[in-house]
Amino acid sequence: MRDLDREETYLSDRRGLALELRDLVGTGPVPTRSYPAPHAALGYGEGHFAARLSGLPDWTEEGTLFVLEGGYDLGEAAALSLLAETERVQVVKVGLRPGVEVYLSPSPLNPYRYLRFLLLATGQEEALSEVDRALLEERKRLTPEIPLEENPAKFLAYTLVERIPLLYAPFHRPLEEAAQSLFARIGKSLALTPPHSALEFFLTGLEARHEQGDPLAALLLGEGEAVRLAKEILETRVDAIAEVPAPTGSRLAQALALWYRLAWTAYYLALLYGVDPSDPEVLERLREAT
Amino acid sequence: MRDLDREETYLSDRRGLALELRDLVGTGPVPTRSYPAPHAALGYGEGHFAARLSGLPDWTEEGTLFVLEGGYDLGEAAALSLLAETERVQVVKVGLRPGVEVYLSPSPLNPYRYLRFLLLATGQEEALSEVDRALLEERKRLTPEIPLEENPAKFLAYTLVERIPLLYAPFHRPLEEAAQSLFARIGKSLALTPPHSALEFFLTGLEARHEQGDPLAALLLGEGEAVRLAKEILETRVDAIAEVPAPTGSRLAQALALWYRLAWTAYYLALLYGVDPSDPEVLERLREAT
Repeated sequence: MRDLDREETYLSDRRGLALELRDLVGTGPVPTRSYPAPHAALGYGEGHFAARLSGLPDWTEEGTLFVLEGGYDLGEAAALSLLAETERVQVVKVGLRPGVEVYLSPSPLNPYRYLRFLLLATGQEEALSEVDRALLEERKRLTPEIPLEENPAKFLAYTLVERIPLLYAPFHRPLEEAAQSLFARIGKSLALTPPHSALEFFLTGLEARHEQGDPLAALLLGEGEAVRLAKEILETRVDAIAEVPAPTGSRLAQALALWYRLAWTAYYLALLYGVDPSDPEVLERLREAT
Repeated sequence: MRDLDREETYLSDRRGLALELRDLVGTGPVPTRSYPAPHAALGYGEGHFAARLSGLPDWTEEGTLFVLEGGYDLGEAAALSLLAETERVQVVKVGLRPGVEVYLSPSPLNPYRYLRFLLLATGQEEALSEVDRALLEERKRLTPEIPLEENPAKFLAYTLVERIPLLYAPFHRPLEEAAQSLFARIGKSLALTPPHSALEFFLTGLEARHEQGDPLAALLLGEGEAVRLAKEILETRVDAIAEVPAPTGSRLAQALALWYRLAWTAYYLALLYGVDPSDPEVLERLREAT
């Protein structure tokens, strides 16, 4: 097993994703003009989680519709560019495709940047400050120089290595998919997300063969009654359970802080597997194909 | 390996789920009064997929809001009963909890029944006929008396046994979760669903350790460019790929026909694992706990 407290383990981070992770807060494009309210947001790819987090509706008859085109996937968002602007609604494209109004270069860490842009563009500086404070607070314990015993992301990575994480975040279900994307794009690993009826899934989906195959590690994000029930159900069914309570703060700050911790966890997981935590080439190929 | 063409294999179907599957079309509650338009639907648990399939909005300011309370999960829908009816909108509860206006007893096959109720309640008899025709057409090839070589559900079950299905349905993404629920509740097995950015996930999520652990079987539902790309990406990364094109028909009929075929597949999978494809007791416990 590789040692996350030794320098040579970090050689597989060939492009320095640790620096991008460390310096994430405050990066990304900022609005250079004002966008008339009411606001709506549609998110694809790297912009999907941000649109869900923002709580904005996905459609508006007037004001501004932000289309976050952060995906490689066959231009779902591109099709939307056919959306004719009417006199009453402006369509503002933000993303990684040519022709957008606001450009971001691709990165698995872009969900933060899309969210930051949306919060600034909709006059929610206060909410953004709270998110940023939560991330900076998290960061104190997550960077490579913090040793294992004080670093919850390193600790979690050791729990997950050679296991399949099973994600459950009842307080904000979109976090599950966002974490699944982080584990894939940074950790180069599979993670399982439950369907809408998560507790039924936990109860029934492991009946036939929970002794076989890859061991599962349940990752319970947040707190509350649903987490307690899931723990009770999964205790006898999975190989390990990790509870990750959210820090205090707004629901938005909690969700982002957990997302940030899981981004670091996925980073350390890649190192434990000895793979590069960055992913530009492979996705560049997909971008060309779609 | 158990033989799906031998009678004794069916002994583990102790409650006769095969009959419920065979006779599904035309079952479920029907509206006994009319519901003023416009219509909206919010779906939980067994009602979730139906609400997504219906294409109805999840909120309306006037007319009728159908709340499909088909879940055991901590009464998300129960919380909604706090939704005060206004003079302009009626809230109609359909589901398995006490106090609903329209009752369904719990079943993994209820997504069809919720959808049927919604279609009838919103005057879409034509769309329902098309769905029913597609299911009856599917049924000809799926029941236990049809031997393996002519039965695509049996064939698919043999492909999936001892593997983890990885589901992808680009033409109607909610089908992935619905199928994941079927594999859990009927097949008693795990299945993987990809996040919003599925192609990125397929490209990156299997890099670190696709040689290890449980073999994956990709299940590509429907047709088109996204399926073609997924196949190209997954060919070298998973143990088996099964393409399941949809029958001709409306998108709704296609989605339901595939769902029905996967319900039969999950049924045969349970038999191959030697477990009961029904699940009432285990879920009854959850119902009491939540």
